[in-house]
Amino acid sequence: MSRQLFERLRERAVEIHVADHLKTRLERGDALRVKLGLDPTAPDLHVGHLVVLDVLRDFQDAGHTVVVIIGDYTALIGDPSGRSETRPMLTEQQVAQNAETYFKQLDMVLYRAKIEVRHNSEWLAAMTAADILRLLAKATLQQVLQREDFADRIKSGTSIGAHEILYPFNQAYDSVAIKADVEIGGTDQLFNLLFGREIQKAYGQEPQDIAVFPLLEGTDGEQKMSKSLGNYIGLAEPPEQIYGKTMSIPDGLIDKYVRLISGLGAKQQDDVLAMKPRDAKAALAHQLVKRLHGEAAAQRAEEDFDVKFRRREIPDDMPEHRVSDPRDLLGALVETGLARSRGDARRLIDQGGVRINGEKAGLDATLEDGDVLQAGKRSFVRIRVG
Amino acid sequence: MSRQLFERLRERAVEIHVADHLKTRLERGDALRVKLGLDPTAPDLHVGHLVVLDVLRDFQDAGHTVVVIIGDYTALIGDPSGRSETRPMLTEQQVAQNAETYFKQLDMVLYRAKIEVRHNSEWLAAMTAADILRLLAKATLQQVLQREDFADRIKSGTSIGAHEILYPFNQAYDSVAIKADVEIGGTDQLFNLLFGREIQKAYGQEPQDIAVFPLLEGTDGEQKMSKSLGNYIGLAEPPEQIYGKTMSIPDGLIDKYVRLISGLGAKQQDDVLAMKPRDAKAALAHQLVKRLHGEAAAQRAEEDFDVKFRRREIPDDMPEHRVSDPRDLLGALVETGLARSRGDARRLIDQGGVRINGEKAGLDATLEDGDVLQAGKRSFVRIRVG
Repeated sequence: MSRQLFERLRERAVEIHVADHLKTRLERGDALRVKLGLDPTAPDLHVGHLVVLDVLRDFQDAGHTVVVIIGDYTALIGDPSGRSETRPMLTEQQVAQNAETYFKQLDMVLYRAKIEVRHNSEWLAAMTAADILRLLAKATLQQVLQREDFADRIKSGTSIGAHEILYPFNQAYDSVAIKADVEIGGTDQLFNLLFGREIQKAYGQEPQDIAVFPLLEGTDGEQKMSKSLGNYIGLAEPPEQIYGKTMSIPDGLIDKYVRLISGLGAKQQDDVLAMKPRDAKAALAHQLVKRLHGEAAAQRAEEDFDVKFRRREIPDDMPEHRVSDPRDLLGALVETGLARSRGDARRLIDQGGVRINGEKAGLDATLEDGDVLQAGKRSFVRIRVG
Repeated sequence: MSRQLFERLRERAVEIHVADHLKTRLERGDALRVKLGLDPTAPDLHVGHLVVLDVLRDFQDAGHTVVVIIGDYTALIGDPSGRSETRPMLTEQQVAQNAETYFKQLDMVLYRAKIEVRHNSEWLAAMTAADILRLLAKATLQQVLQREDFADRIKSGTSIGAHEILYPFNQAYDSVAIKADVEIGGTDQLFNLLFGREIQKAYGQEPQDIAVFPLLEGTDGEQKMSKSLGNYIGLAEPPEQIYGKTMSIPDGLIDKYVRLISGLGAKQQDDVLAMKPRDAKAALAHQLVKRLHGEAAAQRAEEDFDVKFRRREIPDDMPEHRVSDPRDLLGALVETGLARSRGDARRLIDQGGVRINGEKAGLDATLEDGDVLQAGKRSFVRIRVG
């Protein structure tokens, strides 16, 4: 069991540190505390998170404890510089609501009974100025500035708020507070996870082993999946959305999606990948809905999609077009070449000749990444957003 | 009065910022709060401090309030990295003792009744992690890294403890806490004083005007006066020490000492500087003791010196020699060429042929910067230490 867990980790991880140490602990049967940190301001998880959630599930299955850290502390005080829109201030009630939202989504993959959900305000809010001074003294400024986004900003002359120095320390201290044995995350978290090791050592703890996993590109096939980029498939979205968005991914992503988030065994993955792209995507879409919402939901989503797309003769292949403002349907029709002018676009809509994913669209319809925009019977464009 | 104060400031300061603003405030008759920060771990003030203390006295004479900040907060927690020997941890009792020592010395120049002595632990100890985060958010990392010692260490690859970032913020926040209108300091404090302006602005306060003053070289004529370098003349030292050490300064420093710390008016300064170096130093030494300990003490110190030096025919000019270990008299006698070997040096001492400042020296005597080491009747060397 433990050996199997380690092999599965090694297959999927981009890097494990320290692999031998982790292997020994697993084989020795140690009960491990496995940490995953989540952003408290964006409680919507997406299928990209399945990469690490599946790993956590493997740990749970082997009897270990999963500790999910919600970094609410900064969110509770807001972005102190007042400059960033990505760090809104949350009330305690919102934090509690977000936690509930997290639970619902985590339950789709993990055993709730074996998840320990912790908010880092528990320990960070109690720290004094002296505690912060002692924490910061555990590392040098040069170590912190190695972090890729800091290094890039210094190089390009972009400001770094002095308070941002605190964030990697807070995140690392979370590992101390919960006595993490293992921490996992995306490859973009490598620095933070390694930094957690250093800070644990400085506080006299055995440093956590870490494993980082590939980041999944969004449905546009270009950027990392993210809600703010509009290229994501949310775990909490309705089955039809999950199915349709999965069908819209570029063919080049099928392999990665199947291997990283389908939850299928190696043999079944190979079977899916042997299919033609259209069928492989349908199998993947079915499987994703099934693992999140069950087989019945997967069948309904499939039928719904077929009604909209196949029976309305929406082709599998079509040109893609990035639109500048997905809330401006008239503009999108002009930009994509489906209409000659905004006036022309308005007439097309009035005549009922414009469809989004096979459904008639009104003037106030908005577009999402992966949507099929259709004018008349035979003109189709796949919309890309962001 | 106000105009006169401003002119005196302008004569002595290396830089005033913002000069016009300060001038206006003084002429308008505003009651100003004038800040000076002092190092809590080194409560011994030296004559180099007279440069800024005299300025503070001028402010007091014009009716303003002097606020002396003792940065005890860091000293109370010690150096959190545990690496620096220059930041020992102090107990509250030691901090109180040091404050008393400060008072005694400040009383030599300032009106005690008009000094507000504050310890920054008053406000810093009450700060939470959230307060620190908000404080750090008021500036960018790049701003802080402009500070000369940070910039130098980054360039040379020398470590900067991440906690050291907090120090300029703490010092700047002191200005917010006491609502400083003016802050003065040595030229080495320019960054910190300007940074105080920025942080005050960020907290909605009118920024302090600042003025920085020249740093005084120590008795060796080379490095900044500092207790740790052993080249200082302490305010609390006995009159004879102050007199003798002043007599030992290189001739090239006389002008600077007379202008910066004699406390004499311009006319009297010119009179002293018109004398021969030996006499100018005697007048300066007399004046320094007089202003710190009174005329009677000055006369006694002068007589004491004359007995030791003039009547024992110690010459005014003699070679100088830097010694490697001022606690090793045998070694110093060999290094300076006054003895051929340690055995020879020991014999000289045993025969009573070795004197320090005219007094017979035993084997366990130690040397200080500026001491006259004498072997036999006609061999003299001025000792330099550090």
